[in-house]
Amino acid sequence: MSGRIRNESLRSKVMTAGEAAALVQDGWTIGFSGFTGAGYPKEFPGALAARINAAHDAGEPFRVNVLTGASTAPELDGALARTGGVGIRAPYQSDPDMRSAINAGDADYLDIHLSHMGQQVRRGYFGRLNLAVVEVTAITEDGKLVPSSSVGMNRTYLDEADFIVLEVNEWQSEELLGMHDIFYDVGNLPPHRVPLPIRTASDRIGQPVFDVDPAKVVGIIETNSADRNTPFKPLDDDSKAIAGYLLEFLGDEVRKGRLPENLLPLQSGVGNIANAVLAGLAEGPFENLTSYTEVIQDGMVDLLDTGKLTVASATAFSLSPEYAERMNREAADYRSKIILRPQDVSNNPEAVRRLGVIACNGLIEADIYGNVNSTHIMGSRMQNGIGGSADFARNAYHSIFVTPSTAKRGAISCIVPMVSHVDHSEHSTSMFITEHGIADLRGLSPRKRSKVIIDNCAHPDFREPLREYVKLAEKKANGMHTPHDLASALGWHVRFLETGTMRP
Amino acid sequence: MSGRIRNESLRSKVMTAGEAAALVQDGWTIGFSGFTGAGYPKEFPGALAARINAAHDAGEPFRVNVLTGASTAPELDGALARTGGVGIRAPYQSDPDMRSAINAGDADYLDIHLSHMGQQVRRGYFGRLNLAVVEVTAITEDGKLVPSSSVGMNRTYLDEADFIVLEVNEWQSEELLGMHDIFYDVGNLPPHRVPLPIRTASDRIGQPVFDVDPAKVVGIIETNSADRNTPFKPLDDDSKAIAGYLLEFLGDEVRKGRLPENLLPLQSGVGNIANAVLAGLAEGPFENLTSYTEVIQDGMVDLLDTGKLTVASATAFSLSPEYAERMNREAADYRSKIILRPQDVSNNPEAVRRLGVIACNGLIEADIYGNVNSTHIMGSRMQNGIGGSADFARNAYHSIFVTPSTAKRGAISCIVPMVSHVDHSEHSTSMFITEHGIADLRGLSPRKRSKVIIDNCAHPDFREPLREYVKLAEKKANGMHTPHDLASALGWHVRFLETGTMRP
Ligand SMILES: CC(C)(COP(=O)(O)OP(=O)(O)OC[C@H]1O[C@@H](n2cnc3c(N)ncnc32)[C@H](O)[C@@H]1OP(=O)(O)O)[C@@H](O)C(=O)NCCC(=O)NCCS
Ligand SMILES: CC(C)(COP(=O)(O)OP(=O)(O)OC[C@H]1O[C@@H](n2cnc3c(N)ncnc32)[C@H](O)[C@@H]1OP(=O)(O)O)[C@@H](O)C(=O)NCCC(=O)NCCS
Repeated sequence: MSGRIRNESLRSKVMTAGEAAALVQDGWTIGFSGFTGAGYPKEFPGALAARINAAHDAGEPFRVNVLTGASTAPELDGALARTGGVGIRAPYQSDPDMRSAINAGDADYLDIHLSHMGQQVRRGYFGRLNLAVVEVTAITEDGKLVPSSSVGMNRTYLDEADFIVLEVNEWQSEELLGMHDIFYDVGNLPPHRVPLPIRTASDRIGQPVFDVDPAKVVGIIETNSADRNTPFKPLDDDSKAIAGYLLEFLGDEVRKGRLPENLLPLQSGVGNIANAVLAGLAEGPFENLTSYTEVIQDGMVDLLDTGKLTVASATAFSLSPEYAERMNREAADYRSKIILRPQDVSNNPEAVRRLGVIACNGLIEADIYGNVNSTHIMGSRMQNGIGGSADFARNAYHSIFVTPSTAKRGAISCIVPMVSHVDHSEHSTSMFITEHGIADLRGLSPRKRSKVIIDNCAHPDFREPLREYVKLAEKKANGMHTPHDLASALGWHVRFLETGTMRP
Repeated sequence: MSGRIRNESLRSKVMTAGEAAALVQDGWTIGFSGFTGAGYPKEFPGALAARINAAHDAGEPFRVNVLTGASTAPELDGALARTGGVGIRAPYQSDPDMRSAINAGDADYLDIHLSHMGQQVRRGYFGRLNLAVVEVTAITEDGKLVPSSSVGMNRTYLDEADFIVLEVNEWQSEELLGMHDIFYDVGNLPPHRVPLPIRTASDRIGQPVFDVDPAKVVGIIETNSADRNTPFKPLDDDSKAIAGYLLEFLGDEVRKGRLPENLLPLQSGVGNIANAVLAGLAEGPFENLTSYTEVIQDGMVDLLDTGKLTVASATAFSLSPEYAERMNREAADYRSKIILRPQDVSNNPEAVRRLGVIACNGLIEADIYGNVNSTHIMGSRMQNGIGGSADFARNAYHSIFVTPSTAKRGAISCIVPMVSHVDHSEHSTSMFITEHGIADLRGLSPRKRSKVIIDNCAHPDFREPLREYVKLAEKKANGMHTPHDLASALGWHVRFLETGTMRP
């Protein structure tokens, strides 16, 4: 045994993943730890997948509902999706196999604002939570749980589940103890909610460990496996250009006295461009930055290293293997500058609004009037999910969205006449940035927006076609507030589906 | 003079509306009081319209930007719109003439979340605020302003404007003094924002009057005119049916232990159905209700009268003439049960989230997957605006939307394959109610939603066509998460625009 299980009575519950998985019944709803490839259970899901496969092979039905913090890794989402035995999946995923199951109409995906998940689970909208399966770094002598590389939904799942299986992962650094800030009162349901006592990203308001009812713990698995995140792609010219425009904008706002010199707390979404923006900040002029965000990427660690970022508040790491190893070695040093919180604190609208977060997220497509699609390819096909993007975008001080101007080697314009799905409405977006420039939408009505979005953000090849659409729409529309020709508004998407390109 | 101006030095500034309007220059941005037909200046706007018309007649350009709390009345929005001299209009309106100016592409309408307006004005996104024109009930001896029947944006406009014109309206009851709760710290910009110290709808956290810098007051106009609101339509069977379904749902939630017996604070949108819902509650079983909402309609006053509602917190009245007269007579009695707050408090995401507001708003159309259009007729034509609906819906505990199943005497289905504009995405809506029933969307993926929305909410005539759309979409779509046939998704709207009906 690893010595990480310091509570004597819990030590007696150590078992294999197979033994633990054998406890699961058909139809169970399971709350797993895990958030963007960090802190997910490494062995239980595979064992559960084997159990499901065995049942299916024997001609027996076997399905489980899979709740998590957010996306996980192939060992969890991939393994379970491939069994064909996933019923409900919530609230966010980004796994190729899970995505296939969802888009085949097999897994029933609930794409939920991450900050809403806690209340929905507590109020029983998913029915009974039969089991929580949570990775931890260690169990203390008095039976408290030291969180691992993500916090996500763990507090809620541990509290709400009938039974608990813990994975104690020796790979996680013991020096993580003290990095987390678990605020319990945020889980109160109304009318018992209290103000969130956060005034700056660096405020600690909770405890460093999870409480757990030992009577609910039915099994403990010992593991020693790394978190699995995909490495970020090397920064390309487009990402660098986008980061450049963002820095220029932020600099301008400071000069105009509209942002403090150290800006406001930054939120930076998932994906490669978000990471490039952070790299840009590392070389930029801003000092004493703070971050109130969802995940800590490589770029944010670099920013902490330069001393330009003084604190990063998030709910999880989202690090490449190289950076994850480094975080593990140097956790003791980072512990004073990184705070990992439950996702209902990191993504809380109250905090996002009060702190005045500058939110910067990726998108699938945006339209000429300012609406954003973050989730659906051609209106129907789920890519990842909305995640926390609307927790931030809707309540942020600036809601910035970044994207290359085209996708699929230029066949698709990411700026379209009308988005095929809306996750963030024109009312909640304030800037778009592509490699061609920035569209600052503040103070602009829809028709004025269309001009700057087309001129500044669209790919040059698509600018003229977009302008032609606007002309047509102004001729055909029943009102000039947001002119659309509904007969051709989605025509670009239809053309792509039929011919493989949006180009005429 | 009326005796309402008790501050001596301010008394010297009394002038006619025409004299005050003469101060305005071409291109000015003016912040007017006024929220849903309550508390708007009664005389200045007409005088300003005359000034603009005179300039136009003389061949001179004259435009003003018109900012308000929300909608106003014909005397303000109508009079100014008819001059053709409105540049920007923000953040919400519902006036026929202003609507025409917007949809003609003449007035430049910024349709803004009401809770965002304060920070946008303070940060100068509308440029300099040249003038504030604010109706008040009285001016105290020490130069404080007693608010009238709406608070809205007044605190911000008084603070930010270069010059101020006050209208002291003798029609407003002096007994309103003490009903308002003006919290100043909510106007702090980040990083200086503080927690909003509200834990229940009845908490008073501010002062009863506005502060004003007397040096900025350039004119005071004395008026004696009633607020002008349109009477509500008598309750029809559809509205009663909708209210019935809502009450049934709330009762069920209480029985299941998912809502307290006195529910959670209610928010009730604008329009006739919202009023019907309140009437339903007056006859319903619930006691000790509270309301944390934007406007106080007739129905809410009735609810207070029955004793079933203990407190109504809002930013404005939205009363029929009869109820407005009564409020005026009996303000002293209602003062302990009604709190009027600035709109950045009434609509604050922090408060909405913390209190767990049950939001109930109207819509133009909803789609089978749960997206809601509150603003645009056939995708292009602005009706009113988003108002506070997303401040509430996005952060509420339940986001309920109510609508008759059809519009335009049955030619239009309010449940469509795909909405022509999205104000509230599927991620932020939890129940739809029409006269045919309720669709409880919680825990349902998009495809399951489509079934309950069609079966429970769509008009019977449109159910089969909607089911046929679903079948076609499932055949054509590139993914089964939210199946759409993009070529025909907006086809119902196109058919209506071409033939005058969505019916095949
Ligand atoms: C939108 C999002 C997918 C972009 O992420 P990214 O890493 O920059 O995305 P990529 O450019 O690699 O695109 C992902 C895929 O979508 C495709 N794609 C991108 N834009 C597209 C478009 N307009 N039309 C069709 N496909 C498109 C890409 O080709 C790629 O497909 P592939 O995987 O088959 O190669 C990602 O930001 C996301 O999931 N956002 C929603 C959640 C979120 O914002 N979370 C952060 C909140 S805190
Ligand atoms: C959506 C909204 C307009 C509905 O209000 P209402 O009083 O119930 O609306 P009505 O049924 O009278 O409809 C208003 C108009 O839209 C038309 N309409 C309604 N549904 C329609 C549809 N699906 N397609 C086309 N027109 C439609 C009606 O025919 C009517 O037109 P008319 O004025 O030419 O007769 C109103 O709730 C609103 O403005 N909401 C947005 C702001 C908001 O929610 N504020 C509250 C926040 S606290």
